[in-house]
Amino acid sequence: MPDGLGGPLSEPVFQRLALIGMGLIGSSLALVCRRKGLAREIIASDISPAVRVTVAKLALADQVAETAAAAVAGADLVILCAPVGAMGTIAQEISPYLEPGAILSDVGSVKASIVKAITPHLPASVHFVPAHPVAGTEQSGPEAGFSTLFLNRWSILTPPEGTDPKAVARLAAFWTGAGANVEIMQAAHHDLVLAITSHVPHLIAYNIVGTAADVEEVTRSEVIKFSAGGFRDFTRIAASDPTMWRDVFLNNKEAVLEMLGRFNEDLSALQRMIRNGDGDGLFELFTRTRAIRRGIIEQGQETAAPDFGRRAGET
Amino acid sequence: MPDGLGGPLSEPVFQRLALIGMGLIGSSLALVCRRKGLAREIIASDISPAVRVTVAKLALADQVAETAAAAVAGADLVILCAPVGAMGTIAQEISPYLEPGAILSDVGSVKASIVKAITPHLPASVHFVPAHPVAGTEQSGPEAGFSTLFLNRWSILTPPEGTDPKAVARLAAFWTGAGANVEIMQAAHHDLVLAITSHVPHLIAYNIVGTAADVEEVTRSEVIKFSAGGFRDFTRIAASDPTMWRDVFLNNKEAVLEMLGRFNEDLSALQRMIRNGDGDGLFELFTRTRAIRRGIIEQGQETAAPDFGRRAGET
Repeated sequence: MPDGLGGPLSEPVFQRLALIGMGLIGSSLALVCRRKGLAREIIASDISPAVRVTVAKLALADQVAETAAAAVAGADLVILCAPVGAMGTIAQEISPYLEPGAILSDVGSVKASIVKAITPHLPASVHFVPAHPVAGTEQSGPEAGFSTLFLNRWSILTPPEGTDPKAVARLAAFWTGAGANVEIMQAAHHDLVLAITSHVPHLIAYNIVGTAADVEEVTRSEVIKFSAGGFRDFTRIAASDPTMWRDVFLNNKEAVLEMLGRFNEDLSALQRMIRNGDGDGLFELFTRTRAIRRGIIEQGQETAAPDFGRRAGET
Repeated sequence: MPDGLGGPLSEPVFQRLALIGMGLIGSSLALVCRRKGLAREIIASDISPAVRVTVAKLALADQVAETAAAAVAGADLVILCAPVGAMGTIAQEISPYLEPGAILSDVGSVKASIVKAITPHLPASVHFVPAHPVAGTEQSGPEAGFSTLFLNRWSILTPPEGTDPKAVARLAAFWTGAGANVEIMQAAHHDLVLAITSHVPHLIAYNIVGTAADVEEVTRSEVIKFSAGGFRDFTRIAASDPTMWRDVFLNNKEAVLEMLGRFNEDLSALQRMIRNGDGDGLFELFTRTRAIRRGIIEQGQETAAPDFGRRAGET
């Protein structure tokens, strides 16, 4: 069945792409670049020797470099696909080796703190265009990647003021070639939007799974058996990469605490409705929330199949 | 592809099944009973004339009765598939018409309050065996039903003390025939277990979707566009039937408030970790929660496919 990603472009957008970090996002980028011919050559690197071995074994890149510094030499596009907390260190390590005129980008889920961490290390001759593809699964590592991960998802670019528009346009063409839609916004606004659409949802998913594991009156086995009542949906995102998510919360602290504050206020109101037996108030909220899902389905960000299209008995 | 539900039993478990309420659960029960031959005859009823027309059009039952009272006459199994808040009224209406020796059951997501609402209306000659199949989707109504809804899911029976064990065994055989696993527990314990595995998860899903809709700095369109970052998972259960869920919270108030209290305590601790930049604490929690999902997948309550097996570009 055709998946909608389509065949290769007539011309690559970049000559030489260096991917630093080969987890779910890095490996998916390698696969879609290969399939769509977005770069003539792909050099991959990862701090973990085991990951480098896997990348070589899966032939995800044309070359596997031992170090990030070695990988970026001669690359006209460098994408950092590492946890948010590692970005500054990597930028420092690679900056002497970046090609003049090259574009440096990343895929971090937080933007303002990454700009702050990377900017001091940047040679003036390099174009820095931060990016965040809003796509992922609960799985991690180079074996989790697949070429359609970014298809119909949004990639948000947050170029700092004064960035060369041509560099932004080239990176946008790259993401469009990977199947994504491109949106441009300021880093601070990005961090606020993602706090409510991604970071706080992850936080409360991690939290409810932790709470359920700790309730003494209900056994772990009962939680697992009866998870189809709703709980299991939360366990998916609570199975996401711990390092990545630790770094997200440490690096988007203010926006997350702000949005979490609003979540808590709303939850207190809901709690009071339950305590007071306010059926009309509950009904009103529960009706209103349906419209949001309809919008998400209509705009192609979600499947309309019941239960996410999970197949019965499929494990 | 065989779905694991298998072919009809050699003998029906019941002669005449009356289903009162033909939403997602009632219609799915009708379909699985027909397919597996669990009852010789199926009589359906619903308070909504429009639903009764749909049930007749879809031929979900052998007969469609105008009233619940008419439906139960001559039935040896009566299952109430109505919202929790309607159970007492229906029990009062049907009680004069229940066949001596018949089994009366239900599918409500709350058990103690249903026992309390139904018991006063029960003729002594009728066996009351409350049940709760822990299965569902975010869709509602007679057209949402499908025969494999209960396959590999758990159906919890909460027979009050003194219930005839033969009646319990017959109802258990019925649910086993429908593809479910059967567990027996006390109503109060059921309500506590489901508060944490189902009711509080729904509550916080409804809440985060409501919060996101109300944040002034982030537009509705941004919430929808970037929902693939995690938020969209919550919108699924926040699209569930509002009447059903209003009744759940009004009727399992104490257990829900108790579990919500623990969720809130844990969330405060997590909030403090973020505020204090406690990366180790965050990492520890985010690692621990992965094990729970593994258990759920291993026990066949969830798919292991990334992203619930959502297909790229499929809407």
